[in-house]
Amino acid sequence: MATYRLDIAYNGSGFHGYARQPGVRSVQGDLEEALFRVTGPVETVVAGRTDRGVHASGQVVSFRVDEAIEPDEVQRSLNRQLGPEIAVLALSKAAVDFDARFSATSRVYRYRILNRQAPDPFLAATSWHVPQRLNVEAMSAAASGFVGEHDFAAFCRKAEGRSTVRRVLSADWFRRGDLVEFDIEGSAFCHQMVRSLVALCVAVGRGRVEAAEVSAIIESGDRNSARGAAPPQGLTLVEVRYLDVER
Amino acid sequence: MATYRLDIAYNGSGFHGYARQPGVRSVQGDLEEALFRVTGPVETVVAGRTDRGVHASGQVVSFRVDEAIEPDEVQRSLNRQLGPEIAVLALSKAAVDFDARFSATSRVYRYRILNRQAPDPFLAATSWHVPQRLNVEAMSAAASGFVGEHDFAAFCRKAEGRSTVRRVLSADWFRRGDLVEFDIEGSAFCHQMVRSLVALCVAVGRGRVEAAEVSAIIESGDRNSARGAAPPQGLTLVEVRYLDVER
Repeated sequence: MATYRLDIAYNGSGFHGYARQPGVRSVQGDLEEALFRVTGPVETVVAGRTDRGVHASGQVVSFRVDEAIEPDEVQRSLNRQLGPEIAVLALSKAAVDFDARFSATSRVYRYRILNRQAPDPFLAATSWHVPQRLNVEAMSAAASGFVGEHDFAAFCRKAEGRSTVRRVLSADWFRRGDLVEFDIEGSAFCHQMVRSLVALCVAVGRGRVEAAEVSAIIESGDRNSARGAAPPQGLTLVEVRYLDVER
Repeated sequence: MATYRLDIAYNGSGFHGYARQPGVRSVQGDLEEALFRVTGPVETVVAGRTDRGVHASGQVVSFRVDEAIEPDEVQRSLNRQLGPEIAVLALSKAAVDFDARFSATSRVYRYRILNRQAPDPFLAATSWHVPQRLNVEAMSAAASGFVGEHDFAAFCRKAEGRSTVRRVLSADWFRRGDLVEFDIEGSAFCHQMVRSLVALCVAVGRGRVEAAEVSAIIESGDRNSARGAAPPQGLTLVEVRYLDVER
């Protein structure tokens, strides 16, 4: 028995999300199909199930096989089989009990906004175009209210009986030229949570909500008091962090 | 009578090149259709007709109209009408005799190669993936042979009766992380010339052709002695230069 870790990147534009679903194209479906041709039937575990249209530059997947494989060879084979939308950045042997999901201590997401009048044809697939000038200072103030352990029910799509308590380790906005970017690290995120937090911050950046109202909105636990969800193409899972792993 | 200058960017992936052609989608077709709705019938002149699949981040287009227009308003209208694949970066009044094509003194193109083992889903549409490590020093040596006035017949698709003499002002390769990029400035370029020069340089970078052979290949004037053309998605028209224009 041997466990392996796959570091992958994908452009989510052409997929109905990470998770395999009947009748539609998913990242998991493409990946497992390619892996199957090399290792035979195999089940994979993913660190963060991204929604339809969301990207990843640092997603992590683990799988177990009975017999050891040659990582470099399998990586090359996967990259040959997969289209340009999915790339296997690294494939390495992991501790036998490594589990991409349960071993992870945190996930880091980035949301990218193009904040200028003219669109950018090269960023259209990976950003949200907001032409009106955003107040990034106010957005940072709003984001600071997310840090810590909170019940994020106001920002989560309901899932019966599941806790919506999450720990956010850091959350901040930065202006980088014409881009306004949000970096958020958390223990985990519930469904649509990051995009709902982004939508609220953008409402603040447009002057429609006061940064000081954020705490009350979190405490309300009421999804109607939030501001919907920002479009998926601006969101990228950039890193998954583990204890005792050097890279 | 008033003349205007449009600075535009486009992702060439979905177009059959810049120039209008019957029955297929072109950048010129989309642009003139949008402009028509604002100004009425209008003919545009473009600085560099890019091939099918080639991109532009700094293309220039000029047009003349009988009555003055309000540039900011027209720019916003064009960006609203055009899809995310074409962006109008600027629209400004120009000298009456300004002609995007004939007033241009040079064109600057960039060709981008992703030079690492794993593909990159976010660069697939705007680069050529060459997994084998390229010798960039040898490629720069090859490119230095392009500089000056030469008959580039060996690198041009034949066009009966047209001169294939062009002046290259600068041409060099740079390694920038995992990217290997080619910057070339010339008075003008004939059809497929930049991509043919790139293909030859890559043959040099792979050790299949010696940099010292480049002069003989140019002098041969023989298209069969070249190395074909690099794929279009790696190529971008980045700038068009004019005399007496500040930006």
